[in-house]
Amino acid sequence: MDSDRTPTADGVASRSERRKQQTRQALIRAAQQFLAEGRTAVSVLDITTLADVGTGSFYNHFATKEELFDTAVMAVVDVHGAMMDELTADIEDPAEAFAQSFRLTGRLHRQFPELSRVIVNRGLGMLTADEGLLPRARRDVGAAVRAGRFAVADLDLALTVVSGATLALAKLLLDEPDRDDAAAADTVTAHVLRALGVTDEDIATLIALPLPTPAHVTLPGQS
Amino acid sequence: MDSDRTPTADGVASRSERRKQQTRQALIRAAQQFLAEGRTAVSVLDITTLADVGTGSFYNHFATKEELFDTAVMAVVDVHGAMMDELTADIEDPAEAFAQSFRLTGRLHRQFPELSRVIVNRGLGMLTADEGLLPRARRDVGAAVRAGRFAVADLDLALTVVSGATLALAKLLLDEPDRDDAAAADTVTAHVLRALGVTDEDIATLIALPLPTPAHVTLPGQS
Repeated sequence: MDSDRTPTADGVASRSERRKQQTRQALIRAAQQFLAEGRTAVSVLDITTLADVGTGSFYNHFATKEELFDTAVMAVVDVHGAMMDELTADIEDPAEAFAQSFRLTGRLHRQFPELSRVIVNRGLGMLTADEGLLPRARRDVGAAVRAGRFAVADLDLALTVVSGATLALAKLLLDEPDRDDAAAADTVTAHVLRALGVTDEDIATLIALPLPTPAHVTLPGQS
Repeated sequence: MDSDRTPTADGVASRSERRKQQTRQALIRAAQQFLAEGRTAVSVLDITTLADVGTGSFYNHFATKEELFDTAVMAVVDVHGAMMDELTADIEDPAEAFAQSFRLTGRLHRQFPELSRVIVNRGLGMLTADEGLLPRARRDVGAAVRAGRFAVADLDLALTVVSGATLALAKLLLDEPDRDDAAAADTVTAHVLRALGVTDEDIATLIALPLPTPAHVTLPGQS
């Protein structure tokens, strides 16, 4: 409410601004919950009811339901991406940094089933965005190509293998709850490294490296 | 209408049976059109209206909307799968049969944009089904492993790379309409063959082979 934003009412203005942010966050959390349940065919009213905000307030924040869902997914993925960045920040060999990220990502599905379900339900839609995992993979694979560790002629085409395998592994782990996720992640990492031109000897070294332990991260929807 | 099925009314009974099949096909075609438009959040009424059949008749054929959509997608994919089977039937080397199928599949997106859009919109959901492309890929990769052409420890994990790359390539070609689909398909095929343990020399041979020309196939939704 602009009428609150008078020079002498800073406290009121920032309270209104805070309320606006709370509404936005409530909408994003509601969308994340629907995504985690695989329910995207919901109405704006369903979303605002779950978020416990006025239905009219939806359009103050998002032009369409799709825009909200995109925002909701990317917020979740960014938590993971930032964690990967932190965990691999001190690794000098870009091939190793990539392998560690890929192995850790494969292990995330059992650790954070809600995140995993969001990614699987979102599926290939994950691969359009300029944010999230794909730009990070492009950065990491590109660095390894420049360092002569990966043999790749066209980065975007190589990334279809990397990102496609990531998503298909997420789906497989969701469909087969008893499968060992760590072993599966490492085997798929080995295939992907082979696709990127790494020798079998180097692959054996890379997937035998100890992994850092991800810090405890609370994802949206977890308490 | 069972009352039509009298011993002396075979013509009427089969006419009723034919009508039932026509209704089913009309529903499937309507679902394929919605899928091609990326609209799966439609109601049963939307579907029966587009199919031009009575709304009540829907449940004579499908228990849920999801069951119809599954049927609709798989009918499209089976057309492609059967075509691949036919085109590679005479190839003796299973690695070559796989490479040809993969290269041809990558070329299908520009040829049949409706099929491509259906696959991309369906996304990872494609990978659950016991029908369609995944069982065919399992069969072909398995044959090449048994023939000593592919080095794969766990078939299902290797297939995450194969199927994931297939879907991610479909998405990339949809997002980048100007990209050369044949060159892209062959490059991704090369990466996937590398992931499966084929040597660079053999890969060069495999992706240089001439491809059979797919027969003209009319897909649902095309006239």
